[in-house]
Amino acid sequence: MTTDSVGSVEPQFLTFAEDEPFCLESGTMLGPVTLAYETYGMLNEERSNAIIVCHALSGSAHAAGLLDGDPEKVGWWDECIGPGKAFDTDRFFVICSNVIGSCYGSTGPASTNPVTGKPYGLNFPVVTIGDMVRAQLKLIDHLGIDKLLCVAGGSMGGMQVLEWAAHHPDRVKSIIPIATTAHHSPMLIAFSEVGRQAIYADPAWNKGDYYDKAAKPDAGLAVARMVGHITYLSDESMQLKFGRRLRNIEKYGYEFETEFEIESYLKYNSNKFTQRFDANAYLYVTKAMDYFDLTQPTGSLAAAFAAATAARYLVISFTSDWLYPSHHSKKLVAALTAAGADVTYLDVRSSWGHDAFLLEVETMTNLLSSFLGRLASEERVSPPIGDAPLKATPTIRQQRQTLEDTPA
Amino acid sequence: MTTDSVGSVEPQFLTFAEDEPFCLESGTMLGPVTLAYETYGMLNEERSNAIIVCHALSGSAHAAGLLDGDPEKVGWWDECIGPGKAFDTDRFFVICSNVIGSCYGSTGPASTNPVTGKPYGLNFPVVTIGDMVRAQLKLIDHLGIDKLLCVAGGSMGGMQVLEWAAHHPDRVKSIIPIATTAHHSPMLIAFSEVGRQAIYADPAWNKGDYYDKAAKPDAGLAVARMVGHITYLSDESMQLKFGRRLRNIEKYGYEFETEFEIESYLKYNSNKFTQRFDANAYLYVTKAMDYFDLTQPTGSLAAAFAAATAARYLVISFTSDWLYPSHHSKKLVAALTAAGADVTYLDVRSSWGHDAFLLEVETMTNLLSSFLGRLASEERVSPPIGDAPLKATPTIRQQRQTLEDTPA
Repeated sequence: MTTDSVGSVEPQFLTFAEDEPFCLESGTMLGPVTLAYETYGMLNEERSNAIIVCHALSGSAHAAGLLDGDPEKVGWWDECIGPGKAFDTDRFFVICSNVIGSCYGSTGPASTNPVTGKPYGLNFPVVTIGDMVRAQLKLIDHLGIDKLLCVAGGSMGGMQVLEWAAHHPDRVKSIIPIATTAHHSPMLIAFSEVGRQAIYADPAWNKGDYYDKAAKPDAGLAVARMVGHITYLSDESMQLKFGRRLRNIEKYGYEFETEFEIESYLKYNSNKFTQRFDANAYLYVTKAMDYFDLTQPTGSLAAAFAAATAARYLVISFTSDWLYPSHHSKKLVAALTAAGADVTYLDVRSSWGHDAFLLEVETMTNLLSSFLGRLASEERVSPPIGDAPLKATPTIRQQRQTLEDTPA
Repeated sequence: MTTDSVGSVEPQFLTFAEDEPFCLESGTMLGPVTLAYETYGMLNEERSNAIIVCHALSGSAHAAGLLDGDPEKVGWWDECIGPGKAFDTDRFFVICSNVIGSCYGSTGPASTNPVTGKPYGLNFPVVTIGDMVRAQLKLIDHLGIDKLLCVAGGSMGGMQVLEWAAHHPDRVKSIIPIATTAHHSPMLIAFSEVGRQAIYADPAWNKGDYYDKAAKPDAGLAVARMVGHITYLSDESMQLKFGRRLRNIEKYGYEFETEFEIESYLKYNSNKFTQRFDANAYLYVTKAMDYFDLTQPTGSLAAAFAAATAARYLVISFTSDWLYPSHHSKKLVAALTAAGADVTYLDVRSSWGHDAFLLEVETMTNLLSSFLGRLASEERVSPPIGDAPLKATPTIRQQRQTLEDTPA
C-alpha cells in the first residue's frame, strides 16, 4: 500500500425496485435490482464534489484502494484515484458502481431470479447502457447528490459518460469520455459477436444454464477474452512487449504447444479471466455495448447533445487505439461543438492501443487534474467535510434502501 | 462463363517422395507427398513464360476458370488470371498449387498416413512456408521449367513469394509480394493463436482425431474463421458494407439472436467455411505462417535477400490493410533496396482492408500488366506455342510422377 492510496475499501450495496420494478429500455420489468459500489474520499457540505467513474466491459466497482485491505486486490483505476492523484480524493468524493448485467455484485444473469429462486441465466433481460446509467441515477439519489461534478470513464465507461450527458444533462456538470464512441461501429459489433459465438460454441455454456453444473463454459469464455485482449493492444505495443520471442525454448518445437511469448501471455490472461468473470455476463455486457447508439432516434449526434451544452467536456483518444480509433472521438467532438458545447479534445500520442487509457497515467493525471482543478475552482467547490456521513464505511453496507422506480 | 475466362479447368496432381521421403525443415521425413495443382495458358518453347501464383491461408490450387466446368466453382483469383487479364494466359503459363498441410488435394493432416492407413491428424508433421515452396520446386522440376518468369501472391501467398526469392533466387526472374510481410508480427501470431484456441476448445476436435467421427469441430473452426474474417476487412469497409443495419428486423429484439447485418454476414460465411475447410489444416497452415521469419538466422532482412538481387520486385500494400500494414511492406522494400535489388513499390489507396488484394482488380490489373509486360519484353519472352504439351489436360492428371527428393 502506497501512501497515496485510498487504503482499504469495502464493497457497498444499494438495492432498489423491490416493490415497484425497474422498467428497462426494452420495456421489461426488473426487480429487485442491486448495485454494488464503492466510494473514495468524502462529500463536501454542499454535496457538490461527487464524481462517478464508470468501468469498462470486464470492470467492477472496485476502482481504487485495496479491497478488504488485501494488497493483491488493487482497484482497476488505482493509479488515477487517490490523494493527490488525477481524481484527487482529498478534494473529491469518487463513486464507482458495477453495471447491471455484470457479475461483480450488481444484478445480472448470475443473480437469483426471485420468480424461480434460481440464477436468471438467459432469462435475465437484455440491458442497455441507458439502463446501466439509470441504475447509477438511483445510486446518486440514494447518496443525496443532486448534481455530479463529473462523470468520467474509458471504453464502455465512456459510453456511460456520454449517456449521462445526453439523457441526464441536468445531473452532470462535466463529462470526460475517454477512448470511446457514440455508437459501436460494425467492426466493434463484429468483435463482440465473435466473443459471444465463442461462448455459444462451448457445449458447457448450455444455453446459459450452467450455474449448478460441474463444468462452466470456461473454454469459450477464454477464447472470447483472447479476442478482446488482442483488440486492447496495438501492433506496436505487442512488438515492444513480446516481439517474436519464444517462451522457455531456444527454437521452434514444430508442435502445437504454446511457443511464442504472446501466445503464452494471452493464454495465461484468458484463463485467469475465466476465474473472475461470468460467461453470461460477457454476453449481456457486450450486447449492451453493441446496442449503444446516441445518434438514434434522430440520426444526428449533435441533436443528442442539444440539451447537454451546459456541461464542460474533456474528450480524450489515443493515436494507437484501433478499437475505438481517434476518428470516433473526433466525430463526437464535432457533434458537441455543433451543439454548442464547451469541448476540450486531446488525441494523446501513445503506443499502447486501447489499453492506453489505463496505462498513460502521467498524461492522464496532467489532463484530468488540470481540467477538474479548473472546474472545481470555477464552480467554487468547497473542500470535503471531516466527518462526512457518506464516506465508505461498513455501516452503509448494511443500509440497503428501497427507492421507488421512476422509469425514464 | 465470360469470354475472358480460362474456361473449364481440371485439377492435376503430382506425387513425389514415394521412395525417398521429403525432408522437412523440422528434420521430419514425409512421403509420399502429393501436390494438387492447376495450370492456365501454355508454355512457350523456351519454357520461359511460367508464373506461379501462390494462394493464401484458406486458398486452393483452383485460382482461375471453372472447376470441372461448374459455373459455381470460379477460381479464387479469376479476375486477375485469364486471357487479357493481369496474368495474361494468352502470353503466360500460370501455375497454382495447393500448399502442403492444406486440405485441397495436397498432402496434409487429413491425408492417409501410409504407416497407419488412417488420416494423419496431429501425427502430420508441422510444415513451414519453406517446405511449401520446396514442394512447388518439385512441381516446376516436373514441368521442366528451369526458371520462373514470376512468382506472385498475396498474404500467405506473398510469404511463399518472398521465400522463393530468398532461398531459390536462381529459379525466379521476378517477385510480386502483395499485402504481406517478411515475418509474422506478434499481433498476427496472436490472431492465429486465438483461431487455433477456438478449434482446441471444441470437444469435437478431440486432439485432431475426428475424421471417422460423426461430429467435426465445426463450431470451433467457425469461430476461428470469424476472427480471421474480421481481420481481412477494415473499419471503413465494414462501415460501407454493413454500417449498423439490422437484418430482417426494424428494431432491437433485446435477445441474443443474430440482429446486425455484420453478425449475419460473419455467421453465414464462417458456417460456409466449415463445409469446405478442415480444422486441422487450419492449425497447420496458420502455424506455418507464424513460423515464417526471413530475418532468421542472421537477424537482417537485407542479408536474406543478398543472393536475390538479380530478380525484379514489385511490392504492393494497401493503405487500409491493418493485418499486414503498409509498414511491413515498407520494411521489406528498405531491405531489398539495401541489398541492392530493383524494387518498385506501391502503397495502394484502398478502403477494403487486407481483402483489397482480391478486390482492387482494376488497380492490380494495371500494376501487374505493366510490370509483367515490361519484364516479358525485356526478357524477350516468346509467345506460347500452339500445341504445348504441358497445357492443363486430363492426360497430365493421370501422369503422376515420382521424383527423387533432394532436401534443400
